[in-house]
Amino acid sequence: MTDAARRPIVTIEDIREAAERIAGRVVRTPLIPFAAAEPGRPLWFKPESLQPTGAFKLRGALNAILRRLDDARAHGVVTHSSGNHARAVAWVARELGLRAVIVIPDAAPAVKVEAVRRLGSEVVIVPPDQRDTRAFELAAEHGYVMVPPYDDAAVVAGQGTVGLEIIADLPDVDAVLVPVSGGGLIGGVSTAVKALSPNTRVIGVEPELAGDAAESFRTGERVAWRTEQTYRTIADGLRTTSVGEIPWRQIQAYVDDIVTVTEDEIRDGVRRLALDARLVAEPSGAVTLASYLHRAGRLDVEGNVVAVVSGGNIAPDMLTEAVTSTTS
Amino acid sequence: MTDAARRPIVTIEDIREAAERIAGRVVRTPLIPFAAAEPGRPLWFKPESLQPTGAFKLRGALNAILRRLDDARAHGVVTHSSGNHARAVAWVARELGLRAVIVIPDAAPAVKVEAVRRLGSEVVIVPPDQRDTRAFELAAEHGYVMVPPYDDAAVVAGQGTVGLEIIADLPDVDAVLVPVSGGGLIGGVSTAVKALSPNTRVIGVEPELAGDAAESFRTGERVAWRTEQTYRTIADGLRTTSVGEIPWRQIQAYVDDIVTVTEDEIRDGVRRLALDARLVAEPSGAVTLASYLHRAGRLDVEGNVVAVVSGGNIAPDMLTEAVTSTTS
Repeated sequence: MTDAARRPIVTIEDIREAAERIAGRVVRTPLIPFAAAEPGRPLWFKPESLQPTGAFKLRGALNAILRRLDDARAHGVVTHSSGNHARAVAWVARELGLRAVIVIPDAAPAVKVEAVRRLGSEVVIVPPDQRDTRAFELAAEHGYVMVPPYDDAAVVAGQGTVGLEIIADLPDVDAVLVPVSGGGLIGGVSTAVKALSPNTRVIGVEPELAGDAAESFRTGERVAWRTEQTYRTIADGLRTTSVGEIPWRQIQAYVDDIVTVTEDEIRDGVRRLALDARLVAEPSGAVTLASYLHRAGRLDVEGNVVAVVSGGNIAPDMLTEAVTSTTS
Repeated sequence: MTDAARRPIVTIEDIREAAERIAGRVVRTPLIPFAAAEPGRPLWFKPESLQPTGAFKLRGALNAILRRLDDARAHGVVTHSSGNHARAVAWVARELGLRAVIVIPDAAPAVKVEAVRRLGSEVVIVPPDQRDTRAFELAAEHGYVMVPPYDDAAVVAGQGTVGLEIIADLPDVDAVLVPVSGGGLIGGVSTAVKALSPNTRVIGVEPELAGDAAESFRTGERVAWRTEQTYRTIADGLRTTSVGEIPWRQIQAYVDDIVTVTEDEIRDGVRRLALDARLVAEPSGAVTLASYLHRAGRLDVEGNVVAVVSGGNIAPDMLTEAVTSTTS
């Protein structure tokens, strides 16, 4: 691979433009101080769980769709996802009055399919291995605007607005902790943070059971895990088997480290967020607090820390199980 | 009573000064849109549950203490409360390095006493009927600055900053729903809202089982209920037996209505906030959503609605019970 092929694609200017484009249509989430932070390491949460769809995914979907609004109005939009990205695209389509088709793998829980249908989107159910191909076919056939979940410059730029806001609210932040799955969020956040505050460390957090990005980061080669592996974690938003090509370039340029946490540590993160910070987080959103609480030595950060809480769409029984569990 | 004795005491200027005084020391909470709002009645939450002490009480306590900071530094501060106000005063004292004495009734749960002690405050346990007298005695004896939980102009002005922020973020709000107990919050919020947006309705919400303020509002005479009555509600932040004198004047001048909700409706509010808005609310904080969901006819509001979620300090078992309950 040539050097040019490794260079980052998304720039701070892209992220600034995204911020202007989506302003007023997403919640400008505040930083919430963690009252139970440890001495010498004050912690703030960036609660993307408070977006109307319950996750940061709204930012990227909005930016990608607004950039191509004329096409989207003329033909509609399409994506593939069973989770928070599907919900975000369906929400944006409803808000803007667009036709939306969401390709969902047949393994997806009925409750998630229903949530997308309730927002007015058309649902196409396919075998898991056909999810991207079917979405691309539909886009080609009908002219739909494709809104990929993470491997897309406009989507990465939209997610990067989280990083812009963190630096605006806490310019002297020393470390930012970000969940990693397909890499759209950390790809965008790290790009914004390093542009505005080069000495701030950006650290990705992944479940040990879905640790493909940590392995890729360690070895310097983008690896893929098998779904039988990544589907073991309760963090259902972090089961992507490999980071995307575009996010990977941003990660290689701007991310300082990627660490992993155990399932018990994730449950403890959900519990502490609910009881000590009054935030309902899904397991994927709680990995960052889990690393702060249980992997301090591995993180090796001092000073002001921000943990991105990426989403809050958790099943009621999983929330109650986590809340009633004892500290791990 | 002469007309002068009925006039409101706290002004919009007091609230503006409070906002300047406490800026940067409290979370500037955003308005969070409720994705499951009903057509024609968009709803936003004002999540004061996200303050570092888990409740709006921080605003009033901070304003009252900062106004008399020299005295507070020289002698310390004192208050009486077993709940969110105690925690707020203890927090402020720790942040500012002040001595604090908190008078707590002996009926208070050990966990709440511990929370205050952990923040470094001195705790004085007394029989419930001596809580205010003992605090005033201590203030007189030692020169402590007294920080009353609600019947104080500086405290009411501090709580009123919630109203300032609501109007700043949503100038065309048609109705604001506010929990009522001692009346400090609604007294301040209604004063700010009516000064800046006279046509916005301000409606108080109370548990039916602790409906003293609703009765007072209906009859025009400030009544007191007995603690055996008000202690029946699960909304432990709303068990005050009577609104305070100063809040009552603000309420009479600026509040449009006070409605009540049942215990099942309150539990449903807690559940929907957790699952549909990703906010952990205590029962006292969920009464406003309860009224929106279950008392639409009684509220009689159209257009943009804001529900203040006053706090999120809930026992784990009560949270799990509410989350797993079926819709009432």
